[in-house]
Amino acid sequence: MSENVQVAVYGASGYSGAELLRLLAGHPQSEVALVTAGERAGQRLGDVFPHLAPFANMLLESVDTDPAGRADLAFLALPHGRSSTLAPKLLDADLRVVDLAGDFRLPAEAYPQWYGFDHPSPEWLGKAVYGLPELFAKDVAGADLVANPGCYPTAAALALVPLVRAGLIEPAGILIDAKSGVSGAGAKPTATVHYAHTEGSVRPYRVGTHQHTPEIELVLDRASGVATSVTFVPHLVPAVRGVLVTCYARTGFSLDELHAALVAAYDTAPFVRVLAAGEMPDAKRVTGSNVCEIGVGLDARTGTAVVAAAVDNLVKGAAGQAIQNLNLLLGWPEDWGLPVHGTPW
Amino acid sequence: MSENVQVAVYGASGYSGAELLRLLAGHPQSEVALVTAGERAGQRLGDVFPHLAPFANMLLESVDTDPAGRADLAFLALPHGRSSTLAPKLLDADLRVVDLAGDFRLPAEAYPQWYGFDHPSPEWLGKAVYGLPELFAKDVAGADLVANPGCYPTAAALALVPLVRAGLIEPAGILIDAKSGVSGAGAKPTATVHYAHTEGSVRPYRVGTHQHTPEIELVLDRASGVATSVTFVPHLVPAVRGVLVTCYARTGFSLDELHAALVAAYDTAPFVRVLAAGEMPDAKRVTGSNVCEIGVGLDARTGTAVVAAAVDNLVKGAAGQAIQNLNLLLGWPEDWGLPVHGTPW
Amino acid sequence: MSENVQVAVYGASGYSGAELLRLLAGHPQSEVALVTAGERAGQRLGDVFPHLAPFANMLLESVDTDPAGRADLAFLALPHGRSSTLAPKLLDADLRVVDLAGDFRLPAEAYPQWYGFDHPSPEWLGKAVYGLPELFAKDVAGADLVANPGCYPTAAALALVPLVRAGLIEPAGILIDAKSGVSGAGAKPTATVHYAHTEGSVRPYRVGTHQHTPEIELVLDRASGVATSVTFVPHLVPAVRGVLVTCYARTGFSLDELHAALVAAYDTAPFVRVLAAGEMPDAKRVTGSNVCEIGVGLDARTGTAVVAAAVDNLVKGAAGQAIQNLNLLLGWPEDWGLPVHGTPW
Amino acid sequence: MSENVQVAVYGASGYSGAELLRLLAGHPQSEVALVTAGERAGQRLGDVFPHLAPFANMLLESVDTDPAGRADLAFLALPHGRSSTLAPKLLDADLRVVDLAGDFRLPAEAYPQWYGFDHPSPEWLGKAVYGLPELFAKDVAGADLVANPGCYPTAAALALVPLVRAGLIEPAGILIDAKSGVSGAGAKPTATVHYAHTEGSVRPYRVGTHQHTPEIELVLDRASGVATSVTFVPHLVPAVRGVLVTCYARTGFSLDELHAALVAAYDTAPFVRVLAAGEMPDAKRVTGSNVCEIGVGLDARTGTAVVAAAVDNLVKGAAGQAIQNLNLLLGWPEDWGLPVHGTPW
Repeated sequence: MSENVQVAVYGASGYSGAELLRLLAGHPQSEVALVTAGERAGQRLGDVFPHLAPFANMLLESVDTDPAGRADLAFLALPHGRSSTLAPKLLDADLRVVDLAGDFRLPAEAYPQWYGFDHPSPEWLGKAVYGLPELFAKDVAGADLVANPGCYPTAAALALVPLVRAGLIEPAGILIDAKSGVSGAGAKPTATVHYAHTEGSVRPYRVGTHQHTPEIELVLDRASGVATSVTFVPHLVPAVRGVLVTCYARTGFSLDELHAALVAAYDTAPFVRVLAAGEMPDAKRVTGSNVCEIGVGLDARTGTAVVAAAVDNLVKGAAGQAIQNLNLLLGWPEDWGLPVHGTPW
Repeated sequence: MSENVQVAVYGASGYSGAELLRLLAGHPQSEVALVTAGERAGQRLGDVFPHLAPFANMLLESVDTDPAGRADLAFLALPHGRSSTLAPKLLDADLRVVDLAGDFRLPAEAYPQWYGFDHPSPEWLGKAVYGLPELFAKDVAGADLVANPGCYPTAAALALVPLVRAGLIEPAGILIDAKSGVSGAGAKPTATVHYAHTEGSVRPYRVGTHQHTPEIELVLDRASGVATSVTFVPHLVPAVRGVLVTCYARTGFSLDELHAALVAAYDTAPFVRVLAAGEMPDAKRVTGSNVCEIGVGLDARTGTAVVAAAVDNLVKGAAGQAIQNLNLLLGWPEDWGLPVHGTPW
Repeated sequence: MSENVQVAVYGASGYSGAELLRLLAGHPQSEVALVTAGERAGQRLGDVFPHLAPFANMLLESVDTDPAGRADLAFLALPHGRSSTLAPKLLDADLRVVDLAGDFRLPAEAYPQWYGFDHPSPEWLGKAVYGLPELFAKDVAGADLVANPGCYPTAAALALVPLVRAGLIEPAGILIDAKSGVSGAGAKPTATVHYAHTEGSVRPYRVGTHQHTPEIELVLDRASGVATSVTFVPHLVPAVRGVLVTCYARTGFSLDELHAALVAAYDTAPFVRVLAAGEMPDAKRVTGSNVCEIGVGLDARTGTAVVAAAVDNLVKGAAGQAIQNLNLLLGWPEDWGLPVHGTPW
Repeated sequence: MSENVQVAVYGASGYSGAELLRLLAGHPQSEVALVTAGERAGQRLGDVFPHLAPFANMLLESVDTDPAGRADLAFLALPHGRSSTLAPKLLDADLRVVDLAGDFRLPAEAYPQWYGFDHPSPEWLGKAVYGLPELFAKDVAGADLVANPGCYPTAAALALVPLVRAGLIEPAGILIDAKSGVSGAGAKPTATVHYAHTEGSVRPYRVGTHQHTPEIELVLDRASGVATSVTFVPHLVPAVRGVLVTCYARTGFSLDELHAALVAAYDTAPFVRVLAAGEMPDAKRVTGSNVCEIGVGLDARTGTAVVAAAVDNLVKGAAGQAIQNLNLLLGWPEDWGLPVHGTPW
């Protein structure tokens, strides 16, 4: 391995891929060695994303390009279902892999119901490490295959795990109402993301069927050792970036007790900002940064804890967290290349 | 009373007041006889709201102007706490009053906690009719004083009452996660509504303390005859108009049963649109109209009914509903001056 | 002809078609008898545009449907190049036609260069009336075929014609910098109108080649009797509706003289609002209305008149003006079904 | 001077001040030693701008705080009219000063007309260097007082100077139609920047009276040695960041000749991106970066050159350029701390 790690970005014509490149441009020991695309293979990156000036002249190559000898590590920012086939090949070619899709996050039997396909490489599922550094940093160091978490599970788990672990909220009947900007729907033009349809639009989608539901339950259970049940309903709101999850759970504890557990959990976490008790996060404030901002309130009338968390879905919810995992994988400082200050306006 | 009813609009320099005027411009038997403002009294309406062309030359008068002999009915679109003093004077002067503020919606003892003031005219609280026409139309006809509902309670009650009434959802532990555009915060410039702060911002506010909480419980209880408990958390989203409430309740019934109850409840309601089972509403689709769009889903894994409702906060959530009440008060067709088709883009 | 005129809306799945329906829902003597679509033919209108409640159950028919006996008048809201073939057939079937595309606005020889096709029915070009009512109302009354103006030419002509006519600005070297919301780009999802690309985007397009350029020169010349030359550069801005044109011309006259000419020209025009001298229009204020708002300023240092005009591109710039033409065609009051008050927020 | 330069940011509670801090957080040899505010003096920076995490615990001090011994260089991001009094005091205390306001950009006699005040320290005007690095880099190195250019003049000068210098456009009668996001109007809440007023709004402002007009003429004349005359009309558009200027000038030259002059002028400029001939810039693409993107087109019909330039008004149009000047002042690499890749979505 050279001094600079050579990285490949698969899916560089999508939003997560582009965001990986934006952040890698500021990373001190990474070099982008290979970028791939589907339909846009053969074009210059500068023609697809003119704002990515440092990489303007790189050619987008086919996803079938052999990376051996060119890259040490691959980020896979591909649509769900592609990396479960590609990753084993790259691993066999001795690359390390950070997968931003959902292909290595669930047990094999969950894929038909939640993702609509039979998993083609179930033998790798047990070896994949779930890369939520604030909860599983030790597992990530030295891993070959990292399943980078989804945006909603990242925010939900960071908000809820300390409270479930400490027994401060009831693990059954947790309810998560999530709001997301439209970049989460991807770069492909559809009626859903037409400006004239999205401006002023607020709507729930995929009620009871979103693939992040089992991922949230799984990470809560694994991190806390308690079996939880979660109702999860995402919404689209008229913003480009940003995810806010508002989590509701029954509690018999005080606001100060809830707050103290969150503060203690993230005392030394560089990318989690716990607000003062009762203050609520804002998706805008984390835009462009790798920060998860968390606030907790209490509706004492009904005994309901309200814990909300905001992330930039493309950074802490995707590309930024992937680079955080890169840093952990290679034993570098966790925050290399990752801003804690955003660009909120 | 002349053939045309002469109406006064108190608070015509605010958003709800302006929206009343926009709709009254298309009402067949109303004439705007008097408009008032606070700081902007003395100015032409056209200087405050250039888009209200039909009323451009009307002078904004002081709120203390004597309306006797000029107006038959007054809409009060004033900040909370003003109409509880003003309305009794207008009623004594033989005007009918539709109050768009919260001053006549709750029992007297609730005002200190939820609105921060002692109610100055509690004797009128018992005479005020809660003007949610789909539930209480008969009470409105002939009333002297109508308490026009809040935007969130309108949407929440229309979504939940049929299900509570029919015993299809558990009345305890109902959870309402609401999203609102910023016009609900009023026309006054504040840091909160600065464009640069609002664009891209998604945030909860007033967790556990919003004044619409007891109003929602009260209308649910009154309309259903069952005691409910509600946790209510509103959010601001980057939109001008629009409220979406997503309501969660435990249920043992099927999606079809839930859906059938909603369809039956609003079979003949001109302003409620119940979507197909499982389809979800969009705040954008009701913009500019007096429609409440309702959708219901079911998370069968957790036994959670998800019923969502969207209204334009300035129309069905304020000015449009006030005109619907005007129509009912005077025995006119319920839909005069009230569009069912919006201006979504 | 029945008491209600039966109208057909061709292209009802596009934005101009939908806006025609929204406005026709409030028109006192029109009935929508036939709606057509391309790819979406066969679907219910309510499935395509849920906000168009009054027409939810109408079926979108094929553009080839024979309208004879069903409709008296057809609005053609089709992509450019379609109505030049369709209109002659409808005219032969004794329908009157209002064409919202550009197919009947220019002389035949202009079509290859500006629209990229040879005009298939040039014999109709001489019979088509250019339907800008404020300038050519007399021609519209009784016409069989009306060429409804483009959005930019509507705003530009209303701003400039009175000044050119009165000899107050130099007719050569007029410069028009135009800004438009993205609904002008149509309902088809493309990368250009993806929310994530449009939010925050301000960009010129089609410099020197936009098809509205010759239309603007033509209407200026025809209405004023003077030969003009115009440089026209449109821009996309992050808004749904709204067109603002800022027109620059050399002048030796005073601001008061410029302003007086505009005031005089539109003294009795129901849909033109001339602002006080020096005040500038705002695209937002005319949203949802059929109004063109005009303001004039003067840069005395450089002898440059600055006259700006705002219209809602879908109303005064398309569907509203088409209905204004319908009213004139049939001798009805010019403002039937057409609001002068907008829905700016 | 220590290894790290100690910098003071005056006006840290405004948008330009906050943006200076955001960028300084990534600058390798600067340390923020002092931040000041007006009304918000005494508060923690983290309470004003929660996203500026690295500086959250710094106290905002009074503008009257003595910086001697604490700071080597001061950025003045104050309202116009303040730095002309403050800067001389700081200079006397041996600080270097980069002024982001307009106080040192014009000759003394221009201030009453364009800024509305008599300049209190005209003796410093001759010593101030106009800090537009692409044109005057040599002057900046070693200067004590830098007048950081306005956002519109930055974009306009970078677009026009190469063409004026080369004699490719007529210097008289240049017309600049500019569009800006609302962050340029500052952080103070006003009716103008209320979200409900700004969303969907496109409007010209300050026609013929904007204070950037003489600044643009001055820099064009100084850089090209030719006397120009400019008409400048700015517009507000519904965006947070971004300025696009569209410049029009008469020309007898070809598009290729115009384009070649721009390419040659910025061959080695790290922060200017000249697009292919005929391609137009987009304000969105430079968001968050210090880049000025320039495109040129030609309307051959009318002999009009159309040259457009986009900058992020808070970066290349303010704070980024100020840091570029810092780098030049101190002999550091010009691009330290300044991204060339933006955050467009």
